[in-house]
Amino acid sequence: MKTYIFLGGPTEDFPHGIFAEVRHARDQQNARVIGVDHGSLVLLRENIVPDISVGDYDSLTESELAQLEANVHDIRYAIPEKDYTDSEMGILTALRDLKSSEVIVIGATGGRLDHFLVNLFCMLKPKLRRFLRQVTMIDQKNIIEFFGPGNHQIAQKKAYKYVAFVNLTAIDDFNILDAKYSLTNFSADYPVSWASNEFVASYINFNFKSGVIAVIYSKD
Amino acid sequence: MKTYIFLGGPTEDFPHGIFAEVRHARDQQNARVIGVDHGSLVLLRENIVPDISVGDYDSLTESELAQLEANVHDIRYAIPEKDYTDSEMGILTALRDLKSSEVIVIGATGGRLDHFLVNLFCMLKPKLRRFLRQVTMIDQKNIIEFFGPGNHQIAQKKAYKYVAFVNLTAIDDFNILDAKYSLTNFSADYPVSWASNEFVASYINFNFKSGVIAVIYSKD
Repeated sequence: MKTYIFLGGPTEDFPHGIFAEVRHARDQQNARVIGVDHGSLVLLRENIVPDISVGDYDSLTESELAQLEANVHDIRYAIPEKDYTDSEMGILTALRDLKSSEVIVIGATGGRLDHFLVNLFCMLKPKLRRFLRQVTMIDQKNIIEFFGPGNHQIAQKKAYKYVAFVNLTAIDDFNILDAKYSLTNFSADYPVSWASNEFVASYINFNFKSGVIAVIYSKD
Repeated sequence: MKTYIFLGGPTEDFPHGIFAEVRHARDQQNARVIGVDHGSLVLLRENIVPDISVGDYDSLTESELAQLEANVHDIRYAIPEKDYTDSEMGILTALRDLKSSEVIVIGATGGRLDHFLVNLFCMLKPKLRRFLRQVTMIDQKNIIEFFGPGNHQIAQKKAYKYVAFVNLTAIDDFNILDAKYSLTNFSADYPVSWASNEFVASYINFNFKSGVIAVIYSKD
């Protein structure tokens, strides 16, 4: 089962056609939808009632919160002083409560830089790190996937010219084998964004011994 | 001496009035200007001739490169397969060649996510890390400053409501002392964005024993 999570990022950065995709997947009864904070309101405006709404709702007006409470069956109120951010709670709800095999996160990018970094780095937390391969963050120009140590093969996505490999953590023995720009035995105790790489065949193979890598497919 | 570096990010994210500020600083003879790749062209269109232009220029047309060569006295051509990205070369040129005490980087944000991460993480590289406090990245809504281990005090900036503390690396014994949300003895081997904090007085004190922290002032 796939779950779509809508965070509070600006809607103009959402992937084209995402609401139609969500409606269709729901009609086929193979998707759930979670709204996080303001993301729940965005969904309601698109006539998509989230299965679950998560957040502290502190950025919502009283009437917006009332609208949420009148429409959403399962509303979960986050504790303000908490160990998890709203986006982390949304992702954990999809993975642990809904047992989703695939989680698509929309609205993680495009707003304030510190919010984007909250979302990008949240997969590094111990409770989320074992779900790396199940979570994908997408916006209008980027697809972000997450990888733990081991051997990996990623497929070209035709609409996306560039692929970046970003070690979000310290990294040990990182190798990119068959891309336009290869990399051999790279180790460092700090993050690096290996940007603007490209596919030269249908697949790129890469591997590393420890750390977490975000692969970012992008187009201009 | 202050140096302004213009990277290739989208101009609509540049700080308001930045070109006027640069022209004024130059008139006062206390600023230098470096254009990186497409950033040099943006400067020429604003009738600001960069002191130095750095890049591999592979995104420029022939006539754009000719325009650059006709106007800029000191043009430095980067090697395509190189240890440093264009933005790192620009920053190192300001610090090592121009001996700038203060480097303001414009155009680091707002474009592709992988490019933003290249720029955000570049200060972590060993050759740049000793210059952390000399480099500031700014756009229309954010000011990013960099800190190494020790005790630090940062001042409130009135126009910016929020302040985030982002440990870009593993971090040891990180404390935020007198902000809206404090933090005590945090250590982790992965980056975390501590977003949406706020000043409750004119200053916030923080300290940590190892790692690098980016402080991001932001407004909605």
